[in-house]
Amino acid sequence: MRALVLADGEFPSPQLLRELAEAADVVVAADGAADKALAAGIEPDVVIGDLDSVSGEARARLGPDRLLEDDDRYRTDLEKAIAWAIGRGCTAVDVAGFGGGRADHALANLSVLVLFRGQASIRLVDDQFEVRLVDGEARVEAEPGTVVSLVAIGTCRGVTTENLRWNLHDATLRFSPLGVHNEVEASPASVRVREGDLLLFQGRWVERHE
Amino acid sequence: MRALVLADGEFPSPQLLRELAEAADVVVAADGAADKALAAGIEPDVVIGDLDSVSGEARARLGPDRLLEDDDRYRTDLEKAIAWAIGRGCTAVDVAGFGGGRADHALANLSVLVLFRGQASIRLVDDQFEVRLVDGEARVEAEPGTVVSLVAIGTCRGVTTENLRWNLHDATLRFSPLGVHNEVEASPASVRVREGDLLLFQGRWVERHE
Repeated sequence: MRALVLADGEFPSPQLLRELAEAADVVVAADGAADKALAAGIEPDVVIGDLDSVSGEARARLGPDRLLEDDDRYRTDLEKAIAWAIGRGCTAVDVAGFGGGRADHALANLSVLVLFRGQASIRLVDDQFEVRLVDGEARVEAEPGTVVSLVAIGTCRGVTTENLRWNLHDATLRFSPLGVHNEVEASPASVRVREGDLLLFQGRWVERHE
Repeated sequence: MRALVLADGEFPSPQLLRELAEAADVVVAADGAADKALAAGIEPDVVIGDLDSVSGEARARLGPDRLLEDDDRYRTDLEKAIAWAIGRGCTAVDVAGFGGGRADHALANLSVLVLFRGQASIRLVDDQFEVRLVDGEARVEAEPGTVVSLVAIGTCRGVTTENLRWNLHDATLRFSPLGVHNEVEASPASVRVREGDLLLFQGRWVERHE
């Protein structure tokens, strides 16, 4: 089962949002994302959070059964929404609306990839990228020239890539711009990591270097 | 000596940009940021990068002496600009224009705080935050209620805070939203870390929790 989880940041284009919603079995809005979803023509199946950012209008339209109040101060609304989806049996979770706002929130939102490691296949999706955690190995099936960036959160050991333009062989990658803006040479490309939290940004565009 | 380094992302408000430029002894633009700087009424002292994003107009206006071509593929234009400023004796470096664009670039731009650890006091500045690395200890002199977020890049050990609303005592912080959206309880507040790369986001606004 696939979930679309909407975080309360900048939403993707209406077309991408529609595609993601259509591919999902369940749509979960994190608190104030409920209003943005309704404005974009998407009716969430549930809304989770402390619910202090949901308008009266959205409350009335969705009804009390879809509003799940969760006041846990130690988890963000985004974490609550993903945990709920996983608890309902979703093994694939797309997250939209994760960026574009405050820099601290945008950075922290990326951490859900690490927090839920192994519990579901999570992708953070915006109009430019889908971002995944390389949990052991990640395959990139994409047209040659597709932009790919790798960013290590901390130290990543044993990083090996295949079929990228610039490949790594059992390399140690640290938090730096070194792995940013590579590209797919042949599909499928692959990225492996032995140890550490490695984020894979797969671009939606082709940009061949000369 | 203080430098203002302009990265090629989203620029802050004209007022903040002016304040930063006035406080700086030297203004360095990373490649295409030169055009944005000129458009905002700031004339960079030098422009560094592979210079493929600098318009003919900007080249003509600044003249060849201010255009420093550096084709190193293993460093970003932002890194080159900061390294140049440090090489010229700057011990304080403000970076503006680091966010707002591609998610991979925005994340990688944060890493300059780690890359140049100990070489200069670097702040990434936008209209909401200034972001610093906690290099041993950081002081936060700000009005009570000022928003403060801590984000660990990887694992940070021995994290101790004082005079925040929610304090940590010799805690281990991992990449997560746990340290996001704290606030100053009394000034100066302080954040210490024994080991690891801890980013400190100091907000420009006061938002007292009930």
